[in-house]
Amino acid sequence: MARVFDSMILLIDCPDRKGLVAAVSDFLYRNGANIVHADQHRDSELDLFLMRVEWDLKGFGLSADLFRKEFGPLAERFQMRWKMGESTKPLRAAIFCSKQDHCLSDLLYRHRAGELACEISMVVSNHEESSRLAGFYGVPFHHVSVDKGAQAEKKQLDLLKEHSVDLVVLARYMRILSPDFVSRYPQKIINVHHSFLPAFAGSKPYHQAFERGVKLIGATSHYVTEELDQGPIIEQDVARVSHRDRLDDLVEKGRDLEKTVLSRAVRWHVEHRILTYAKKTVVFD
Amino acid sequence: MARVFDSMILLIDCPDRKGLVAAVSDFLYRNGANIVHADQHRDSELDLFLMRVEWDLKGFGLSADLFRKEFGPLAERFQMRWKMGESTKPLRAAIFCSKQDHCLSDLLYRHRAGELACEISMVVSNHEESSRLAGFYGVPFHHVSVDKGAQAEKKQLDLLKEHSVDLVVLARYMRILSPDFVSRYPQKIINVHHSFLPAFAGSKPYHQAFERGVKLIGATSHYVTEELDQGPIIEQDVARVSHRDRLDDLVEKGRDLEKTVLSRAVRWHVEHRILTYAKKTVVFD
Amino acid sequence: MARVFDSMILLIDCPDRKGLVAAVSDFLYRNGANIVHADQHRDSELDLFLMRVEWDLKGFGLSADLFRKEFGPLAERFQMRWKMGESTKPLRAAIFCSKQDHCLSDLLYRHRAGELACEISMVVSNHEESSRLAGFYGVPFHHVSVDKGAQAEKKQLDLLKEHSVDLVVLARYMRILSPDFVSRYPQKIINVHHSFLPAFAGSKPYHQAFERGVKLIGATSHYVTEELDQGPIIEQDVARVSHRDRLDDLVEKGRDLEKTVLSRAVRWHVEHRILTYAKKTVVFD
Amino acid sequence: MARVFDSMILLIDCPDRKGLVAAVSDFLYRNGANIVHADQHRDSELDLFLMRVEWDLKGFGLSADLFRKEFGPLAERFQMRWKMGESTKPLRAAIFCSKQDHCLSDLLYRHRAGELACEISMVVSNHEESSRLAGFYGVPFHHVSVDKGAQAEKKQLDLLKEHSVDLVVLARYMRILSPDFVSRYPQKIINVHHSFLPAFAGSKPYHQAFERGVKLIGATSHYVTEELDQGPIIEQDVARVSHRDRLDDLVEKGRDLEKTVLSRAVRWHVEHRILTYAKKTVVFD
Repeated sequence: MARVFDSMILLIDCPDRKGLVAAVSDFLYRNGANIVHADQHRDSELDLFLMRVEWDLKGFGLSADLFRKEFGPLAERFQMRWKMGESTKPLRAAIFCSKQDHCLSDLLYRHRAGELACEISMVVSNHEESSRLAGFYGVPFHHVSVDKGAQAEKKQLDLLKEHSVDLVVLARYMRILSPDFVSRYPQKIINVHHSFLPAFAGSKPYHQAFERGVKLIGATSHYVTEELDQGPIIEQDVARVSHRDRLDDLVEKGRDLEKTVLSRAVRWHVEHRILTYAKKTVVFD
Repeated sequence: MARVFDSMILLIDCPDRKGLVAAVSDFLYRNGANIVHADQHRDSELDLFLMRVEWDLKGFGLSADLFRKEFGPLAERFQMRWKMGESTKPLRAAIFCSKQDHCLSDLLYRHRAGELACEISMVVSNHEESSRLAGFYGVPFHHVSVDKGAQAEKKQLDLLKEHSVDLVVLARYMRILSPDFVSRYPQKIINVHHSFLPAFAGSKPYHQAFERGVKLIGATSHYVTEELDQGPIIEQDVARVSHRDRLDDLVEKGRDLEKTVLSRAVRWHVEHRILTYAKKTVVFD
Repeated sequence: MARVFDSMILLIDCPDRKGLVAAVSDFLYRNGANIVHADQHRDSELDLFLMRVEWDLKGFGLSADLFRKEFGPLAERFQMRWKMGESTKPLRAAIFCSKQDHCLSDLLYRHRAGELACEISMVVSNHEESSRLAGFYGVPFHHVSVDKGAQAEKKQLDLLKEHSVDLVVLARYMRILSPDFVSRYPQKIINVHHSFLPAFAGSKPYHQAFERGVKLIGATSHYVTEELDQGPIIEQDVARVSHRDRLDDLVEKGRDLEKTVLSRAVRWHVEHRILTYAKKTVVFD
Repeated sequence: MARVFDSMILLIDCPDRKGLVAAVSDFLYRNGANIVHADQHRDSELDLFLMRVEWDLKGFGLSADLFRKEFGPLAERFQMRWKMGESTKPLRAAIFCSKQDHCLSDLLYRHRAGELACEISMVVSNHEESSRLAGFYGVPFHHVSVDKGAQAEKKQLDLLKEHSVDLVVLARYMRILSPDFVSRYPQKIINVHHSFLPAFAGSKPYHQAFERGVKLIGATSHYVTEELDQGPIIEQDVARVSHRDRLDDLVEKGRDLEKTVLSRAVRWHVEHRILTYAKKTVVFD
């Protein structure tokens, strides 16, 4: 959603207990918060309480540091896992891509149009092709050849560290990241897979879909975990296909799906709308 | 959503002010409420705050009457418009229909399947045809001939009053209710119009859509107000049509849309999910 | 589509060859056919030509028997696999169901509303519950207990044979048919599976979907083959779910999808719109 | 659909008459055509026959000029309105835009990706902003200030003529073309309107939609005629909105719809898939 004010966002999950909402609301009120949106939900199966609150910074009495300090004891009392975000301190994203640049192009356009509330620190690719596109949007481009294996990842990790990157977006990046890489960015790497997971995991999903004769093709964005294509799903979408669609047409229709599900995932992540638990995500949209 | 516990639901809209959420949360907490879902939203254009809270009745210390009494002063302080609902006291609905019975059939089936958390007190029709269907589902049927004009409405109103009906569902009821009738059930009459309003208001919307050559046809459920087809929209949906679809095919595809948007509207109304303001609805889904 | 004239329909697939369309068109023209719809398509990968032609019977010079005799040599010349259907001789369908009757109820309603151009010869169930519903729509009901294993299938097969049934619709029928049964009705048994195949094949697909945290749930209608859930897919559809949906809500939302994909499959089958080849279907919609 | 062979396409509409398909098929066969797709449809209400045929040029005996000459008498006999297209002679399109460039950017990307089977001869704008974007994709850019009224249109028309432009795409071009301009490009100007027509015609459709409280917003692509927003509709699509969406959010969601419906319209037009009749379009997709 387009932003019209500066805000702070709090994401919480914890064991369900009476008084949770009252305690958090009271804490915010005492510190001058004016709540703009809030969404609370109890997962009765897991006995878990999930919450997202966003408030206007105007009149709010705590800096981010003070907030963390003051909120800590309350969080501890309720055994909360929690994250806090500030619209004034946008996350710093790096986009990884390979030869295909439709997702990259879409993300850069949306970012420039103000749809993605983050900074795009860099584009990283194992091919030179996207350099021109990154340049058009004024984003630094880094070519990292993957021929050299572990050395390539080291170079990528150095770049991320050097620029304090918070989020890695795999925009049809066709290489598999090592478990070590993944473990350094838990719930901070978003990938797009070109199928409706869990159908057609692995390679060549459009070929698989074509062979099977499905009537809808899909795409899935998800957090990357060590198990390939098994991370928590963030968003999915589908499009209708028919016998008139050849394999190439599936690939073409799929591009639009990939753009949609990846850009939504990035948007939700940078707006602090996503909680993960039990291998799933909750999206407070 | 399928119900797994008894709950109370509070719907609020009021001028935006700090401390609102804290005050309500605190009130609920002090009375032993365990919040199951809550959704709060500020409409920044109208400077309005909208809220829906639902809590488990287990351990809650107030009866409905006591709640109303105790909550009153708080509501007044914040200038709230508010409504309270109880899952243990389902609304009592009457379904009005004419010859076409697809919406009626759909509503009765869903009710029996447990999808609609209300009682269906009666079916009222200006035709005899639906008597058998109502009978199949064990719902009382009343034939009210509309030939007699004002007398017919009087009879309908008497029936509604006699059975303490809270909600009138116009399931393709093809007569226009008088302003007097409508004024007695404000935001308590739901109609389905067979077009994507505001396109094709008035009569024969499928004919109009066919003539215009639209590529999607639609249906709309809305609260009935004195202005025909102008009430607050609750739900809309569309379906794709092509040159292969004749007028009859539009009518046929439209039936599925009508069932969908009407049944959703009824469900949301009886689950106390709908607020109306500024000629619009807010649906807390 | 609603029918407004009597027609004959021809479905063809054969190796691609020049002159095919001309030969068929010429044959029809010489016999007085007035073509109402026709759709031809070359599958360039398999070098296959697929065709559906429907013509108005008014003025057509051949009876069904004569058509078969006269068209035979032409078909042979082009190595066609072909089927012919007549709108005046609707297929005879049997609906199999178990306890859940949402698909059954939907099919019976649609049939009565004129949406399904077939006869419904009987409802067969391993439970007594649906007897009343079948009765309401005036369709003969047969209870066949499955406790007796092979004997039950024999009884079912006898019923189908006795009433010259052309199509078996498994409307959430929860038993697996034997390979022998299946082989007797090739491409004549339609099933609905409550997932977006190939995801979540097998049992308890909603549980699987819930566990995996998908953002869309689906349903699939397909022809039954000897391999469970592997037959040619006819139709699929999906609906959005969120963290607010519990497992029961998935089941509930899924019911609407199941009704949609199954009723479309039945409609297309009885209107002779479906060809199968290479484990897939072509639907001429 | 991605193109894998060179083809000729024939679009026909004419009064319905027996022998039409046979005559056309026979004509094509005698000249060596191998049909790839064909779609024929009778509009029973208007007693009109509509047809699209596409055939592989390999082995086809007629040049375009010869085809026109030879096909003429047949066309006359059946009173056909017809158009012929060649995949080897792509149409030449000009894109008009104003300040907003999301549709322009989308069209240029899709063109480069091979999704639009036309040449893009130029971008014409009343603002300088899009010059850089056009340059990035190597498309000539012309700034035509509209301050000078009629003179501006003259300049635009000169440009179109000079470059033999066949199709004018109004990609959120915010000026109204004069009737004279429109009459020179009948069924050759495609516009995108940011509402679900006929709802919210005219100016500020998102404002209108927001005021009315619709639950779905839409976009429409259509041929431009002399009556504003009244031309034959080519494609429409919708997206769901809720109370959480402010006016700006509607505008943002709308951008994706506009890109979708405009790019589809352009694609179908340049692939010769669209017939217009009775103020409607037929899209052979």
